[in-house]
Amino acid sequence: MDKPIGVFDSGIGGLTVVKEVIKLLPDEDIMYFGDTARVPYGIKSRETIIKFSLENTLFLLQKDVKMIVVACNTSSSLALPVIRKHFKIPLIGVIMPGAKEAVYATKNKKIGVIGTRATINSGAYEEEIKRLDSSIKVLSQACPMFVPLVEEGWSNDDITMKIAEKYLTSMKKAGVDTLILGCTHYPLLKQKIQVIMGKGVKLIDSAQQVAVEVKQVLTQEGLLRREKGRPTREYFVSDEVAIFQKIAKRFLGADLKEVRKVSNV
Amino acid sequence: MDKPIGVFDSGIGGLTVVKEVIKLLPDEDIMYFGDTARVPYGIKSRETIIKFSLENTLFLLQKDVKMIVVACNTSSSLALPVIRKHFKIPLIGVIMPGAKEAVYATKNKKIGVIGTRATINSGAYEEEIKRLDSSIKVLSQACPMFVPLVEEGWSNDDITMKIAEKYLTSMKKAGVDTLILGCTHYPLLKQKIQVIMGKGVKLIDSAQQVAVEVKQVLTQEGLLRREKGRPTREYFVSDEVAIFQKIAKRFLGADLKEVRKVSNV
Repeated sequence: MDKPIGVFDSGIGGLTVVKEVIKLLPDEDIMYFGDTARVPYGIKSRETIIKFSLENTLFLLQKDVKMIVVACNTSSSLALPVIRKHFKIPLIGVIMPGAKEAVYATKNKKIGVIGTRATINSGAYEEEIKRLDSSIKVLSQACPMFVPLVEEGWSNDDITMKIAEKYLTSMKKAGVDTLILGCTHYPLLKQKIQVIMGKGVKLIDSAQQVAVEVKQVLTQEGLLRREKGRPTREYFVSDEVAIFQKIAKRFLGADLKEVRKVSNV
Repeated sequence: MDKPIGVFDSGIGGLTVVKEVIKLLPDEDIMYFGDTARVPYGIKSRETIIKFSLENTLFLLQKDVKMIVVACNTSSSLALPVIRKHFKIPLIGVIMPGAKEAVYATKNKKIGVIGTRATINSGAYEEEIKRLDSSIKVLSQACPMFVPLVEEGWSNDDITMKIAEKYLTSMKKAGVDTLILGCTHYPLLKQKIQVIMGKGVKLIDSAQQVAVEVKQVLTQEGLLRREKGRPTREYFVSDEVAIFQKIAKRFLGADLKEVRKVSNV
């Protein structure tokens, strides 16, 4: 019997990845877990992020998924190497695809990275970029206010513009021509960020590239779904379903029905 | 043997309460727990807030405290009634003391309340105020951006002024003469809030009044510390100690040394 693709995130942001996977692989079954009871991860320590990420991995493994996509940038930065060390299941994070795309896109070899404090402090993007091309200069900036702004529904507010300016001005001045949106919430601020950075700067949202990698790995491993019929989509969260559904709409632009609350610990 | 006063909070904000308790009761032993691995509570559901708060209560009970102060407004609003139902230990929350002080302070019988989304949605302050004086009009406003602003260290930034204006203007226009700062982070924004609300508006930070209640209950129950010698102060957190210490300095204005990481679940 075919098994679903497992996807986890610290909360809701991973839905941007789910959206792209569904677009590229519409026949695949998907099982999503959002750790909404313990969200956010990005302000927490390496040790705690690893602990939570391992618990989420175990949750999905017990649901018998065929692959796990770590859709959270913070988890991918800090926990993916540990998960990879311990588990046999095929794993895809969001750092490598994003870094690859940025390296491909940059012309002046100056790449900017924005993300949560934990992601930026980990240096994961920088390391991945340097591994691909050591001559590239990487500038990083943590933007801790961006997630609360998106969740408050202020993506189009003037205040968001002011905060984005505060975070991004020095990066703009440094002349990066490519900027990695290293957090699944940030694509919702794309418009504002583009205005500040200028039209010439390419914004990288790794979700699409992640979907490409998912397809590649499933193909290589002979794991693409064989059954016919409508694929299943199941969403699990650790906090209340209604809160998740309300914000999910902002990410997917559509209502999400099949959501269940579970305990992942 | 004398036992410590237990205090818990979703994270770091409860230190404002600890500060006032120490000021009023300098000889008391104190044991603090901050659930920094699962912070914040204010964006989560009633069920999850109750679950976490019961776990924190059990943690402190196992440490053999003589009383528990629920220093978190969100926990006090939603979980205190449940904790009180199940446990025998003397309990003090932050809602009743704040409400009492506000009712005492108001002259025009219009009180404003600001807090996290969970606190405001619970209606706990309004209920408590109406119980004391049903003729008082209560206006409430959730301010979800205030906690991230304080934790980002932007308390004195212009952006904070803009955000505070956005949240508070309608309350100012409605003419409240008393405003309850219904979240332990908000006293750090007192200056800005006072400028927006105007000098005539009394801001209520319940920490002092909570300390008064703690003293009263300990006296009534014959639980004041009898031993001589320097009191102990122990701080426990569920995430990394260093992150807590860094932000704690903003709340206490001093370094916090005796902090240990523990698991509360």
